[in-house]
Amino acid sequence: MYQLNEILENKVINNLISGFERSPDQLNKPHESDAEIIQIGNLKLAVTTDSISEEITTGLYDNPYLIGWMIVTVNMSDLAAVGATPIGILISEIIPETFSEEKIKELQRGISDACKAYGTFVLGGDTNEGKNLVLTGTTVGIINSEKSISRVGCKPGDLVYSSGKLGIGNAYAISKLISKTNSLINYKPIARIKECELLSKYASCCMDTSDGLISTLDQLMRLNDVGFEISTDLEKMIDDLGLKYAEDNHIPSWLLFAGQHGEFELVFAIPQNSNQDFLDECIKKRFEPVELGKVIQPKEIRMNLYDVLIPINSEFIRNLPYETKDDVNHYLKLLLDYDSELKKSHNLNFTSN
Amino acid sequence: MYQLNEILENKVINNLISGFERSPDQLNKPHESDAEIIQIGNLKLAVTTDSISEEITTGLYDNPYLIGWMIVTVNMSDLAAVGATPIGILISEIIPETFSEEKIKELQRGISDACKAYGTFVLGGDTNEGKNLVLTGTTVGIINSEKSISRVGCKPGDLVYSSGKLGIGNAYAISKLISKTNSLINYKPIARIKECELLSKYASCCMDTSDGLISTLDQLMRLNDVGFEISTDLEKMIDDLGLKYAEDNHIPSWLLFAGQHGEFELVFAIPQNSNQDFLDECIKKRFEPVELGKVIQPKEIRMNLYDVLIPINSEFIRNLPYETKDDVNHYLKLLLDYDSELKKSHNLNFTSN
Repeated sequence: MYQLNEILENKVINNLISGFERSPDQLNKPHESDAEIIQIGNLKLAVTTDSISEEITTGLYDNPYLIGWMIVTVNMSDLAAVGATPIGILISEIIPETFSEEKIKELQRGISDACKAYGTFVLGGDTNEGKNLVLTGTTVGIINSEKSISRVGCKPGDLVYSSGKLGIGNAYAISKLISKTNSLINYKPIARIKECELLSKYASCCMDTSDGLISTLDQLMRLNDVGFEISTDLEKMIDDLGLKYAEDNHIPSWLLFAGQHGEFELVFAIPQNSNQDFLDECIKKRFEPVELGKVIQPKEIRMNLYDVLIPINSEFIRNLPYETKDDVNHYLKLLLDYDSELKKSHNLNFTSN
Repeated sequence: MYQLNEILENKVINNLISGFERSPDQLNKPHESDAEIIQIGNLKLAVTTDSISEEITTGLYDNPYLIGWMIVTVNMSDLAAVGATPIGILISEIIPETFSEEKIKELQRGISDACKAYGTFVLGGDTNEGKNLVLTGTTVGIINSEKSISRVGCKPGDLVYSSGKLGIGNAYAISKLISKTNSLINYKPIARIKECELLSKYASCCMDTSDGLISTLDQLMRLNDVGFEISTDLEKMIDDLGLKYAEDNHIPSWLLFAGQHGEFELVFAIPQNSNQDFLDECIKKRFEPVELGKVIQPKEIRMNLYDVLIPINSEFIRNLPYETKDDVNHYLKLLLDYDSELKKSHNLNFTSN
């Protein structure tokens, strides 16, 4: 079995929590769920915490409204992935002295708009002064259905979907961090709170794409001891703006799945025998998930690149940001080199046939 | 009535939340409770979030074990003040690259030890890299009793208590920030989780002393439209180490109530007609609260300084850190000047009699 600890992020987390005792009321194990699930009497509480810090220091997020929107969205997305209905959010804000009144207003407007969009509320918070802007959100939700969904449970043969088209998060990241264009990409993801009740009825596993598609599939692979065959054409999986951005900037479009700035869609699996019921209900609810492929037995991620199913080294891709640190140009170069290698080995296979 | 907005901290918070809609399920109003109380079905959930950031950048907390201990304690203390039993804590950690493995271990050990001390658990968290160490904790608890306690509800005549002796937080702060001695003061406060069930049976209001005694009384004064007469001798209210520290450093001991680094005791009021029952139960539970004085009609805080009951300008004291910013020496000087003024006016009264 692929080890969770082969991924540096998992290893860091495992080290941090190694000395902690686990609550007997906690239903999920570490890594197995986008939010923590706690049994309190008859109630299943979902709680999750997420900070926005690196995104601000790197310059990825420099618009206060977007930062406000995102601190709610990233946390709501984790609730959505476990099928929870939000109760509200607590927000801690570390605000530098130099951050203007105008920017604070925009930050709060982003938070307020996002809460309205998700039908939820700011329950409370904390405010401190600090050298850098740091926001931490903690959401609380309730799981109403009998069955809760987690990252674990899919089986070979299950169909794999995304709740929407992918790639905009990484297109935005490249535009902000590398091209340094003032964001032609309008990045304002929406957590799939509305769709999660339907998903929790049918899905055998679910995880949000907060770290991009390949990271999501890699983590699901390690947790479920399965692989994924992503056979759908890239054009059907990537949203139009992302596709156009990749083309204009001569970036292989599949790299929009490799970067680790996601789009906060949900990736989930549906067992074949309930697929038709699921699709029927999607039509009724006007929900249009994107079929990506299927769960397979071999523990690998195969993607339909250049019209051939090619296994992807997702361990390399996931660990790359840790190894290249803050050097985003070097990071992108290594991804482009990896794409060239794949093409080379593919052409070799092709010509040898 | 004294306005909440006369205090800069309250004003900042009110500005931040002015655009937010309030949850219909939230039982407390802003400022009225140390933790947020949410009704979910039959359940009263208590949630609260608190960050440790300024304490680290100023050098007040430089011991990783203490930082770990405190991120749990500050949050548990807020749960205690509303009479909640903890379910667990979520912790977001922003860790600088330069923070050693050894320090991370100590940080996590502090968290783990505090959780054990309070009989609670780390439920989950988030980790990010950042320029400065920032910790944000969010605790979740349950209020089991029918009646929940908040900061609001005390009446003139009620007796005022603290769950323990006070002043160690500010003695520690002076020793770290001004004397820059390597902390002869052993600061490791314990949130009053064990005592809060008893308090919630009897107390008409409750608030923790996270910002020091005078800030706590001032906020309770504004919220309850009452005053406080703190008639107990300083020697009985201040712990021995704090008293000795003040004496050795020629600091008037009552200034250990004025500074805003607290000791995480609970300040609460008990109606006179239930005071005997309360005290009887305290003896049974081996809980030794410190009687401070009583709730009074006039909206002022009178303290027994230099054997005379003197009204304290708590608005001035609370706003002083905002006005002197990071200049702790100037801050202490202004507090000492204020003490001199008080003494002068007291002597004048005394000689004119």
